[in-house]
Amino acid sequence: MSSTPLPAAVRDRVRFDADGLVPAITQDAATGEVLMMAWMNDAALATTLATRRGTYWSRSRGELWRKGASSGHTQQVVSVALDCDGDTVLLRVEQTGPACHTGTTSCFTDRAVDLDALEAAEAADTVETAEAARPGEEDRTDGDS
Amino acid sequence: MSSTPLPAAVRDRVRFDADGLVPAITQDAATGEVLMMAWMNDAALATTLATRRGTYWSRSRGELWRKGASSGHTQQVVSVALDCDGDTVLLRVEQTGPACHTGTTSCFTDRAVDLDALEAAEAADTVETAEAARPGEEDRTDGDS
Repeated sequence: MSSTPLPAAVRDRVRFDADGLVPAITQDAATGEVLMMAWMNDAALATTLATRRGTYWSRSRGELWRKGASSGHTQQVVSVALDCDGDTVLLRVEQTGPACHTGTTSCFTDRAVDLDALEAAEAADTVETAEAARPGEEDRTDGDS
Repeated sequence: MSSTPLPAAVRDRVRFDADGLVPAITQDAATGEVLMMAWMNDAALATTLATRRGTYWSRSRGELWRKGASSGHTQQVVSVALDCDGDTVLLRVEQTGPACHTGTTSCFTDRAVDLDALEAAEAADTVETAEAARPGEEDRTDGDS
């Protein structure tokens, strides 16, 4: 599949899943920002190590995908690590341009879940539920009703 | 599965895989270090959002796993984001103690791939291959042998 074999030292440590893939987290080496999560197969990891350019496996297109090949938003790999059980890859990169295809710096930029809004909604629900439950409140004082 | 339903605002954005899971990257909010990657199902994400404690789905044990429940190495969630296509979660946390069950700060600590050693080995292989190929070198000047 690739002209670049995965080095034995890495092949012995990495654990691909049943589909032959491993998740790869890519982090900006300068800022520490997590830029994206994508997938690597044997060839993508081998190519990333050999070329020091972030290269992934596109599950949707079924092909190797060198990040920035069409957009120019390439990733120069600074370091690669595997986690404790070898089933996740962490790349630290020098990212050229935005990492996300939508044009944002990272794929997580401006996509936070509003925890305070959730908490407020939850509190409102609790009040509503408590009010709705009030007519039967006497029953529940028995303990296990 | 959980007493805490996933809020509709999040349910509409998250894309679980065929197994009902989504990868979750956990990052130290203070240092930016990527601590670990684990998996969440609907209940794990809902519990994480409701309790602001890092909670995952253990694929090996088949159960919800509140990080630090046995070790005390809990995660206080500072922020949660989904990526551009909703199939990855990023948690920023205040980590108590080491994040990795092996006792290292992160699951990637001291587990770097030595890129320079790989490059040196690759260069040595290339020299060996070139030397081994020398006897037949005349043949190859023909172009496509």
